[in-house]
Amino acid sequence: VTLPRFFVPSVGESRHVALTPEEAHHLTHVLRLGPGAEIRMFDGRGREWAGRVASIDRRVVTIEVAREVAAVPEPPTRVTLGVGLLKGDQMDAVVRDATMLGVASIVPMATAHVALPKRARQSDAAIARWQRVAVASARQCGRAVVPTVSPITPFDALLTEAGHDVVIICVEPARAGANAGAAAGSRPSALLVLVGPEGGWSEEEVRFAIGRGARALHLGPRTLRAETTPVVALSSLWTRWGW
Amino acid sequence: VTLPRFFVPSVGESRHVALTPEEAHHLTHVLRLGPGAEIRMFDGRGREWAGRVASIDRRVVTIEVAREVAAVPEPPTRVTLGVGLLKGDQMDAVVRDATMLGVASIVPMATAHVALPKRARQSDAAIARWQRVAVASARQCGRAVVPTVSPITPFDALLTEAGHDVVIICVEPARAGANAGAAAGSRPSALLVLVGPEGGWSEEEVRFAIGRGARALHLGPRTLRAETTPVVALSSLWTRWGW
Repeated sequence: VTLPRFFVPSVGESRHVALTPEEAHHLTHVLRLGPGAEIRMFDGRGREWAGRVASIDRRVVTIEVAREVAAVPEPPTRVTLGVGLLKGDQMDAVVRDATMLGVASIVPMATAHVALPKRARQSDAAIARWQRVAVASARQCGRAVVPTVSPITPFDALLTEAGHDVVIICVEPARAGANAGAAAGSRPSALLVLVGPEGGWSEEEVRFAIGRGARALHLGPRTLRAETTPVVALSSLWTRWGW
Repeated sequence: VTLPRFFVPSVGESRHVALTPEEAHHLTHVLRLGPGAEIRMFDGRGREWAGRVASIDRRVVTIEVAREVAAVPEPPTRVTLGVGLLKGDQMDAVVRDATMLGVASIVPMATAHVALPKRARQSDAAIARWQRVAVASARQCGRAVVPTVSPITPFDALLTEAGHDVVIICVEPARAGANAGAAAGSRPSALLVLVGPEGGWSEEEVRFAIGRGARALHLGPRTLRAETTPVVALSSLWTRWGW
C-alpha cells in the first residue's frame, strides 16, 4: 500500500511540522484525510519521513514526524534537461514526465526556432507553475527530489555554462542511425540533455553544439512529438546507463 | 520540407484516387490546400506515394498519383502492444504514442484490476475512435503503416493466442533491477509487450504470464503514469534492439 505523500521542505530534525496551504488543501479537500492518518513527507532534496496527522485546525494541518525512511533511489547520473520552449500545456507535460524520469534540473531554453511571443518567454508565473508541476509529479512518482526549474535561458548560454566534465547530448529525432556515439563508454556523472522545440535546431545551433563537444542522440526514423521526445530520450539513456 | 500526408488505403496501381471525406476535410479545411498542391499518400500497410491535388469538386478531392516513394522504415521487430484499459483520453495518448513508436498492433486488454464499467469495455465506438487516433498519429510521425487496434481482449486470451515464436515481455514498473532478462539475447522477430492498467497486475496474472514464459521488464524505481509506461517500455526495447 502506497501512503499519500506531501512536499514539506522544512522537516529537517523537527518533531512537528505544518503543511503549506497548498499541501494542507490537498490533504483535507482532495484526499479528505483526518487526524491520525499516516502519511509520508519528502523535502524535495532527497529525504523522506513517515508521519501522522496530529491536528487540523481550520486551514492549519500539523504533522507529527515519526521517523526518517529510505527514499526512492535517484538515478546514478545527474541530468539537466534543456528543452526548447513549447506551448504551456506541452511544457507542463515535459516537466511532469521529466520529473518522473529522474532528471535533476530542467532548463526551458530560448532557441532560434522557438515561435513564442517574447512576453511569454519572460513570464515568472510560467516558471512558478512549472515548479508546482514538478512538485505534483514528484509526489505521484515517489521521488523525494523535486527538480529545479530554471528561468528561461538562451541555448548558447546553457552550453557555455556547462562544466567541462558534463557530457552534452543533443537529441536529433527523426533520423535513423546507431546511438553508439551518444551513449557509448561508461556512465558519465553529469549529463546535459538538449531537446529542441517543435521547429527543431537551427544549423548554427547544431554547429555550436558540435563545437562544444555535444554528441548526437538519434531516436529512430519517425518524427516524435516535441513534448514526448524528452521521455523517449531519457528512457533510452537510462536503458544504457541504469535507471 | 515535409509535405502534408494523407491516409489513402486504396492507392495500389491507380493513377487517380479520391480522398475519404475525413481526409478531404483535412486537406481543404485544416490545411487549406488547393489544386496543384503537392502531397504524400500512405496506404497504412507500408507503401507511400507522391501526388498532387488534381481537382476539388464540392467535397470530392481527387489526387493525381505521381510515383511511389520510399516509406519511412519500420522497426525490425513486429511489436504487439497489449495495454490494460485506461480512461478514454489516456487510451488516446497510448494509441497515439505507440503508433509514433512503431508498434504493429495494439490490443486493449481487460485485466483483473481494470476499473471501467462493463459497458465501456464493449464499445465499438471506442475502438473506431482509437483507430482514427492511430491514423492521425501515423500521418504526423511519417509512418506508412497504421497499427491495427483490436477489440478488447481478455489478458489470458491474448497470452494464450500468442504464437510460440513470440517473445512476451511483461512491464513491471516501479521496480529497480537489471533489464538483462527482458532484453537479453538477439533481437526477436515478434514481441508481445504487456503493460498493465493503473491498478497493475494481479498475482494470478503475473503467475499466468510467467507460466507462458514472459520476461519481466523493469523501468526503474519511480512509479510511472500508466499512459506513459508504453512509451518508456518501447523506447527501452528499441534502444536494445534497434529502432
